[in-house]
Amino acid sequence: MAAPARIAIFPGSFDPPTNGHLDLIDRAARLHDRVVVGVLRNTGKHPFFSVDDRVAMLKEMFANRPEIEVVTFDGLLVDFARAARASVVVRGVRSAADLEYERQMALTNRHLDPSVETMLLLPSAEVGHVSSTLVREIASLGGSVRGLVPASVESWIVNRPRAAGVQKV
Amino acid sequence: MAAPARIAIFPGSFDPPTNGHLDLIDRAARLHDRVVVGVLRNTGKHPFFSVDDRVAMLKEMFANRPEIEVVTFDGLLVDFARAARASVVVRGVRSAADLEYERQMALTNRHLDPSVETMLLLPSAEVGHVSSTLVREIASLGGSVRGLVPASVESWIVNRPRAAGVQKV
Amino acid sequence: MAAPARIAIFPGSFDPPTNGHLDLIDRAARLHDRVVVGVLRNTGKHPFFSVDDRVAMLKEMFANRPEIEVVTFDGLLVDFARAARASVVVRGVRSAADLEYERQMALTNRHLDPSVETMLLLPSAEVGHVSSTLVREIASLGGSVRGLVPASVESWIVNRPRAAGVQKV
Amino acid sequence: MAAPARIAIFPGSFDPPTNGHLDLIDRAARLHDRVVVGVLRNTGKHPFFSVDDRVAMLKEMFANRPEIEVVTFDGLLVDFARAARASVVVRGVRSAADLEYERQMALTNRHLDPSVETMLLLPSAEVGHVSSTLVREIASLGGSVRGLVPASVESWIVNRPRAAGVQKV
Amino acid sequence: MAAPARIAIFPGSFDPPTNGHLDLIDRAARLHDRVVVGVLRNTGKHPFFSVDDRVAMLKEMFANRPEIEVVTFDGLLVDFARAARASVVVRGVRSAADLEYERQMALTNRHLDPSVETMLLLPSAEVGHVSSTLVREIASLGGSVRGLVPASVESWIVNRPRAAGVQKV
Amino acid sequence: MAAPARIAIFPGSFDPPTNGHLDLIDRAARLHDRVVVGVLRNTGKHPFFSVDDRVAMLKEMFANRPEIEVVTFDGLLVDFARAARASVVVRGVRSAADLEYERQMALTNRHLDPSVETMLLLPSAEVGHVSSTLVREIASLGGSVRGLVPASVESWIVNRPRAAGVQKV
Repeated sequence: MAAPARIAIFPGSFDPPTNGHLDLIDRAARLHDRVVVGVLRNTGKHPFFSVDDRVAMLKEMFANRPEIEVVTFDGLLVDFARAARASVVVRGVRSAADLEYERQMALTNRHLDPSVETMLLLPSAEVGHVSSTLVREIASLGGSVRGLVPASVESWIVNRPRAAGVQKV
Repeated sequence: MAAPARIAIFPGSFDPPTNGHLDLIDRAARLHDRVVVGVLRNTGKHPFFSVDDRVAMLKEMFANRPEIEVVTFDGLLVDFARAARASVVVRGVRSAADLEYERQMALTNRHLDPSVETMLLLPSAEVGHVSSTLVREIASLGGSVRGLVPASVESWIVNRPRAAGVQKV
Repeated sequence: MAAPARIAIFPGSFDPPTNGHLDLIDRAARLHDRVVVGVLRNTGKHPFFSVDDRVAMLKEMFANRPEIEVVTFDGLLVDFARAARASVVVRGVRSAADLEYERQMALTNRHLDPSVETMLLLPSAEVGHVSSTLVREIASLGGSVRGLVPASVESWIVNRPRAAGVQKV
Repeated sequence: MAAPARIAIFPGSFDPPTNGHLDLIDRAARLHDRVVVGVLRNTGKHPFFSVDDRVAMLKEMFANRPEIEVVTFDGLLVDFARAARASVVVRGVRSAADLEYERQMALTNRHLDPSVETMLLLPSAEVGHVSSTLVREIASLGGSVRGLVPASVESWIVNRPRAAGVQKV
Repeated sequence: MAAPARIAIFPGSFDPPTNGHLDLIDRAARLHDRVVVGVLRNTGKHPFFSVDDRVAMLKEMFANRPEIEVVTFDGLLVDFARAARASVVVRGVRSAADLEYERQMALTNRHLDPSVETMLLLPSAEVGHVSSTLVREIASLGGSVRGLVPASVESWIVNRPRAAGVQKV
Repeated sequence: MAAPARIAIFPGSFDPPTNGHLDLIDRAARLHDRVVVGVLRNTGKHPFFSVDDRVAMLKEMFANRPEIEVVTFDGLLVDFARAARASVVVRGVRSAADLEYERQMALTNRHLDPSVETMLLLPSAEVGHVSSTLVREIASLGGSVRGLVPASVESWIVNRPRAAGVQKV
């Protein structure tokens, strides 16, 4: 009898996906049979990209990776994990501040469902400072995000429509 | 002649009160003759519970504890301390990030009134990761907050009215 | 031939400028031929002081310091640095949390323009806990900000017009 | 054809093993087909227990867990991982300080062998403050380590021979 | 009937006592009826000052403060607290790193004796960076420790005998 | 009249120098007219390389950089700075833990001599995790340090004599 597949979820906002996400999801995929990337549906009123666009970007990024699935989710993280038949939540930690936030989240999720484990992975040193927040900021100010996001995401950012008459900055 | 009573204030938003607050206020009460729990009146536009509800919840939690008083306050923390005849502000610290925030607050309050001392206490390991923010989030998503808040607060959360027709999340 | 002037930028919101800023800009000035203090134009919808007021306050603070210039900027920080012919961005770090934020910013700016270096300076212990956020909060609550900001800024704060009928807090 | 077994190493000094180690190894075992616990042979001149004793204690702890193996190692961690056919190093992180140390170690190991991934797990809140160092200190001072180490390890500590005539502390 | 006296212990190595210790013990004394300063007897093989000298220095510092007692101790901290009839251990925290260490110690002590509470106080900003380690280092290198330690301790340091013929570091 | 040369010191143990040091000294050199690299003479009883070897390695690294001088020093850092006519101490910070240590050192040095400023620089992300301690450890265990240290230092490490008959760790 085959062993059960090892499935992990990788939740996030991905507004937009960055090279940091790419690096971490790739690491998660090497450790599991399947990784379900979950785009949180409920992330504030003025997203940079719509949830649909973010899903499309992630699907492009992992087009040739059948073991990486991209879905949306809302509700409790532990419910998403169960729905995906995953026993692991993978999260990246870049810094001590990240660790404290992740610890609080992970212990609370463990309280809600002890069968769901949180696994922290470290991004490559080269992308360890990349964040979606800074990418949005740079893009809003007309700067180049080359090297911070995958080439396909860079195209989405460059071609992003902006309201006519809206001043730069 | 009797020594003056040792009075501490324990300020916060308590939206809602958690088992972390319960643990810390209990510790503060063991170290002082009286603890005045102060609910900050001015905490943003969309509170989870009204200030009145929060006061009611805290009063329920400490109904049999005459040495613990629950009040509201606004204005400067040092003015609240003076009004309560307290020489000590008690604050909980869960993590290094908490410490840095508390240090900045405490040193600024000390500048405003050097007679008011800030005392930091450590919550029990078991509740050290509980936060009102996560409790609100879980409750909003329909999850159970059992074990994160006192049983009486859990009832308030379960019975919290929600606008008809409002979608979950 | 004369060596090129060493120019640094010191960017910030300065809403309002504090004794912490004064201390750091003074340190930066001792290390460079010129310091260009840059007031970020785009800092949220409800500033405490207008950008013009903040520029006026900073100019007052450094009226007798010809090597310290005060300007406004928006857009990318590296573009501001280039426009000011500066090769250095000076930033203050008060705490471990500050360091992590500054590290992320600095490495991202270095990615955008490797010729712009970020230099971190430590404020005096006496002002290391002062922040514009806390100064605004104290001022809003009617407290005294003496000792936290330069005397000239204190006057601006005391004389700040408030909407009639608006309740304290 | 069967999928290759997922093997992790869990390296440490384990002088002595604690309830924190027990918790983390148990979590690692749920995420892998096999966990190889590696006792570092080279840990200073005055260990509390010999390496042989530590191996014996760990074997007792996991006597009924065929998927958990206990060995000794020295040399590079990545060499140990390869020898154990493991692609993952599991480490626990209790605090922000732990994270910074683990990050430095993990990135250096990744440099030495990119095929070995480091996975960080969070111990239970209840044992998150337990350390071998404090256990040794308490035991040396004649205190009880009950609740900090497994019952079997407690016996080893209680029965630990001490040189005659050596004063307490 | 009189309320029981509120007693705190303030443990440390005090090799030598600094202005940071002075500041914190003074704060502890304002919050308690009595503070028992405990000099740990067992602090390594090459102390800067003998335990007797350190006790003498502390007694000088608090000669006119009958509510501050100076003793030595070894063994478990909770045993020292009980012997002093203290229900509180006071510790200073200067930084996030201090907090993590104190948290681990405090939770372990709480495990050993839940009736002993740990209270963390913040030193004055002006002395928040002073440490015995740096004072020893400066003194060893022939530097002046004025302003880092009380004047009486400075005399002890200046008059400290050094082995003839020993080179200045 | 020519402006005075801007001189910085870059102190450290450099046992051995790493690519992290190379990166930081290079950054310091771009910001100053001269950088005096100071090898601390007094760094424990069992150094990996002698002070003379470390100086030789650093001189090799900067053979073609006349603006970078390599010397040894002992005594107070502020005395070294004065002797080098430097007004700036440059230090690298990799992490929050580094910051807290550097802050304590810098504020103490500022107390000893307010005219000496400490400037913190951030290493490249790629070398931000490299430390002399880990390099020594890897080399001791027979691992390759390629990519962690300059090629010339790698040769020193490979050719480092070891006592005959000494077992590999």
